[in-house]
Amino acid sequence: MTSDRALREVQVTRVSGSPARVTEDHVVTEEPLEIRVSGDSLAVTMRTPGHDRELVLGFLWAEGILASLSDVSAIAHCGRPGDEGYGNTIEVTPAPAARLRLPGDDAPMARRGTLTTSACGVCGRRTIDDLLARCARVDPGGSMTKGAVLNAVAGLRARQPLFARSGGCHAASLVTFEGEHVATFEDVGRHNAVDKIVGASLLAGRLPASRRALVVSGRTSFEIVQKAVAAGIPIVVGVSASSSLAIDVARRAGVTLVGFARGTECVVYAGQDRIAP
Amino acid sequence: MTSDRALREVQVTRVSGSPARVTEDHVVTEEPLEIRVSGDSLAVTMRTPGHDRELVLGFLWAEGILASLSDVSAIAHCGRPGDEGYGNTIEVTPAPAARLRLPGDDAPMARRGTLTTSACGVCGRRTIDDLLARCARVDPGGSMTKGAVLNAVAGLRARQPLFARSGGCHAASLVTFEGEHVATFEDVGRHNAVDKIVGASLLAGRLPASRRALVVSGRTSFEIVQKAVAAGIPIVVGVSASSSLAIDVARRAGVTLVGFARGTECVVYAGQDRIAP
Repeated sequence: MTSDRALREVQVTRVSGSPARVTEDHVVTEEPLEIRVSGDSLAVTMRTPGHDRELVLGFLWAEGILASLSDVSAIAHCGRPGDEGYGNTIEVTPAPAARLRLPGDDAPMARRGTLTTSACGVCGRRTIDDLLARCARVDPGGSMTKGAVLNAVAGLRARQPLFARSGGCHAASLVTFEGEHVATFEDVGRHNAVDKIVGASLLAGRLPASRRALVVSGRTSFEIVQKAVAAGIPIVVGVSASSSLAIDVARRAGVTLVGFARGTECVVYAGQDRIAP
Repeated sequence: MTSDRALREVQVTRVSGSPARVTEDHVVTEEPLEIRVSGDSLAVTMRTPGHDRELVLGFLWAEGILASLSDVSAIAHCGRPGDEGYGNTIEVTPAPAARLRLPGDDAPMARRGTLTTSACGVCGRRTIDDLLARCARVDPGGSMTKGAVLNAVAGLRARQPLFARSGGCHAASLVTFEGEHVATFEDVGRHNAVDKIVGASLLAGRLPASRRALVVSGRTSFEIVQKAVAAGIPIVVGVSASSSLAIDVARRAGVTLVGFARGTECVVYAGQDRIAP
């Protein structure tokens, strides 16, 4: 799941005893990706190169811009291999009959549109209302054992070659409720890793991703749970803590939210009924 | 440095042995803050409430929108205390003669403008060129001992009451080259904590923040180093790894970038001359 471009070798100085020692180290690649739709710039995200197509599809899906894979006719990097910056601008060509809900289109559901509302008093509840209004409810059925949750976290850790070499890279996995591994992506940004999971699920014809759990390195914020809700993923597991807004949106959307999943324990913030002992 | 709104008590289920145990836990508050300038919505950031004025000033500074504190006549939350969502929309009133460089104004230096350039081929080098073009060079003088760097990291850890109670919150400190503590802010987003540092420095009349080091929990990405460059902070220290683009921008801007500052060791990615043994 990694490409050569995803890691960079750099010269660093290690300072411990004296004298300091110059050595080579690996760091994760961070580069801007400009996402264009029909030639217009939509967003720039700092990401780790690789699986850009999945990233773009997942991003457009989570933002409510795409309603179906058939809305897209092509996704391709601009320019030619060898050009400076090649690979960092990507063009989305909508299908002829597609109606993408782009921000500023009076698209009533586009998150960016609602977040920058002209009414004074944006607040957490309103943000969640808008999200729930445009997303189908997640499938309420099924459950996952605590053991399967903890195994999925161990499985994520075992599938992080970029982290192993750089010591600084996020990752997200998708697993079945039985704990079977579906996909893992690493990225300098946790939200990008989740976008890649959602984009890969869309390409596989597997959205909404019912009976699946999303496992993320680190903490779970609003943005991560929001992407899970948009993708219909019923269980979200974080290795570390959740934020208040992540918990609010999970509870209102009927998503199970688990945190501090380490060793033999975890904390369930929302949707306890989907976690079996 | 914390407010009551910064933490929330939630009911959670701890699953370790059976049976699962329902208990109270503290999580860090995450809420949207809509930033308006002259009534127009400029950005929404998910942040931990508290020190919103510092956050807004630091954000506007790092984006190249403000050139001086005197550009701003007032910053105030919209609405009335008690209104739903009160505190989550903040209005910036420019001073009468101020010329803020807002995105879309043909402002040649605004980062958002350059990142969403109409030329095909956005790339790391270009992004850094634009940043350096609008920022003064950081002060090349002075140095910090390895001991002062490691003490500053220990000092950051000791000033994280939100982290201590929630287990999931970022923080940023500003210290002098001698290791004296200047300010620390905690926030659900690392970039917000850094914005609060920069905004507080602006309010204190201490920008550019020469002979200061910025210490951040976790990793250092492009965005963190970019904010340091904009604030003229010569040393950036991360508890964990740096990304490739963070290193590139630090090297080109003449900023010292330190990572994995733990225990008795650290790794210097850029500007080794400012770190004394």
